[in-house]
Amino acid sequence: MSHAAPRTLPSAHWTPQNPEFAERVRASFARQGAMRLIGAVLADVRPGYCAIALVPRPEIAQQHGYVHAGIVGAIVDSAGGYAGFTLFPASASVLTVEFKMNLLAPAIGERLVAEGFVVKPGRTLAITRGEVHAEHGGKRTLVALMQQTLMVMHGRADDRAAAAGKS
Amino acid sequence: MSHAAPRTLPSAHWTPQNPEFAERVRASFARQGAMRLIGAVLADVRPGYCAIALVPRPEIAQQHGYVHAGIVGAIVDSAGGYAGFTLFPASASVLTVEFKMNLLAPAIGERLVAEGFVVKPGRTLAITRGEVHAEHGGKRTLVALMQQTLMVMHGRADDRAAAAGKS
Amino acid sequence: MSHAAPRTLPSAHWTPQNPEFAERVRASFARQGAMRLIGAVLADVRPGYCAIALVPRPEIAQQHGYVHAGIVGAIVDSAGGYAGFTLFPASASVLTVEFKMNLLAPAIGERLVAEGFVVKPGRTLAITRGEVHAEHGGKRTLVALMQQTLMVMHGRADDRAAAAGKS
Amino acid sequence: MSHAAPRTLPSAHWTPQNPEFAERVRASFARQGAMRLIGAVLADVRPGYCAIALVPRPEIAQQHGYVHAGIVGAIVDSAGGYAGFTLFPASASVLTVEFKMNLLAPAIGERLVAEGFVVKPGRTLAITRGEVHAEHGGKRTLVALMQQTLMVMHGRADDRAAAAGKS
Repeated sequence: MSHAAPRTLPSAHWTPQNPEFAERVRASFARQGAMRLIGAVLADVRPGYCAIALVPRPEIAQQHGYVHAGIVGAIVDSAGGYAGFTLFPASASVLTVEFKMNLLAPAIGERLVAEGFVVKPGRTLAITRGEVHAEHGGKRTLVALMQQTLMVMHGRADDRAAAAGKS
Repeated sequence: MSHAAPRTLPSAHWTPQNPEFAERVRASFARQGAMRLIGAVLADVRPGYCAIALVPRPEIAQQHGYVHAGIVGAIVDSAGGYAGFTLFPASASVLTVEFKMNLLAPAIGERLVAEGFVVKPGRTLAITRGEVHAEHGGKRTLVALMQQTLMVMHGRADDRAAAAGKS
Repeated sequence: MSHAAPRTLPSAHWTPQNPEFAERVRASFARQGAMRLIGAVLADVRPGYCAIALVPRPEIAQQHGYVHAGIVGAIVDSAGGYAGFTLFPASASVLTVEFKMNLLAPAIGERLVAEGFVVKPGRTLAITRGEVHAEHGGKRTLVALMQQTLMVMHGRADDRAAAAGKS
Repeated sequence: MSHAAPRTLPSAHWTPQNPEFAERVRASFARQGAMRLIGAVLADVRPGYCAIALVPRPEIAQQHGYVHAGIVGAIVDSAGGYAGFTLFPASASVLTVEFKMNLLAPAIGERLVAEGFVVKPGRTLAITRGEVHAEHGGKRTLVALMQQTLMVMHGRADDRAAAAGKS
């Protein structure tokens, strides 16, 4: 039985409202202490798409030596959130309402890549999907699958949103 | 309108199969590099219950200064996983199959406490609930709500489970 | 090992914005053809709480004779939605953004009771929890556990909301 | 902004263990009273894939006239469950452990089609994704997105599984 990953490609069809969407994502990611602490780097940003990469190491492991499920969740939550953020207006920031993640295989290998894909952008909410793949010896294994709801925080530019957070 | 938290208390009714359940949780937690990296500490272990605490600081923040949703997810995933693990036989280890988390309020304050509660232990799967509360000025605010599925990995003691991970 | 259900009681602390919340829920429930088709009845309505009951029968079964997971989902989704709706202003209707449900035991017995509990009401979103219990021979078994996100549809009274549904 | 659906195609890569997988799905679906009651029909079965169709009508509506979220959940839960079941051995039946569904647009139109896709089959658990599309005037709108965990019930052929249901 083959274990093919689901063939969901980043859609080319999204048109960002803000032409500086990539710079905005990079600036916001750079403010995330948590991503720096765990060693995550922004690997790709496109309209409705974001990829975040992480090299497994003991400091981010759980008790069996794999990358901790919560750390896997952290990078795929961020990937989904920034995928959504690429399509938001310049005056809005992004908050995660909720996410759900299935873990499909041990998170080990040379590199983990978390990808977020916008499924539906909306005026108030945006829905994304996420995948985390482990790369090892030229092969990719699907490690986690995510589904996420984001809130568009209108009138709160991302770098001045510290007083926000009310649903 | 009052924002009362759901009154779910840790049940006194669970009987662990392994009398050394608390030592096992402490030893396993101590092997989690990820919990150490983010600064999480094991705050309480009882049959079917586990609490993990974390002090917010810039190193674990997202772009607005709150604790990153993924870090909140990491502590509540661990709390739920260890709550389940307290009821497992000595020869079994624990893996997260999936979890779903809603974020209800910004994760800020003096201390975050993630609590995991076993809802149903089973031979193959265990189901837990989780809550994360922010403590500030003597008040507690419900910050996140979680629901989780765990797998009982029979025949793989927790400290020798590194070859495991197959569903 | 005892299989105690989580002790979450309906909170007495919620104050409805609309004193006619119970009549509104009853009128809305009566318009749900789906609840009538499957034989569900409104069993209880209180501030931040709703219970819906259903008698198992072959017409709502899956292939093994238990009540279909989707039908269990339908009653607990409605119970959560109406629990939230009790706290909405009179000019707003309710939409389910998403829900997640774990099935814990076969849905059989004399009666199923789905209960929805508000965890956090908000201006735009409301978060609820749900439980489905099977009653048989004077005993209650926890059959399903749910977590749900609702949207408050401002300016769309429930009986005139047919043109709504945009996120 | 275009609202493109995620381009996940049914994978051609799955090899069923049981050559009579389609007959098994059809026989099992025919035993689901709930699918008959709501008017759902089996539209397609392929290895790792299943589609279930439903014509919206007042008997399956919620209070605003759309198909009830729970009914949408019922068809996509069944589509995911049978997608997984196509890859199970002949001696096993299928149970839903949990599912999570986002509702993206009102479920109205000429026909709803729920599709289930296997993401990862395993010995004990299988993970699927689901989509529900509304067809209207030759157009398809993504109405719901699902993620699901199934249990492989070994030693319990689907037509003799009525005593099962233990996790």
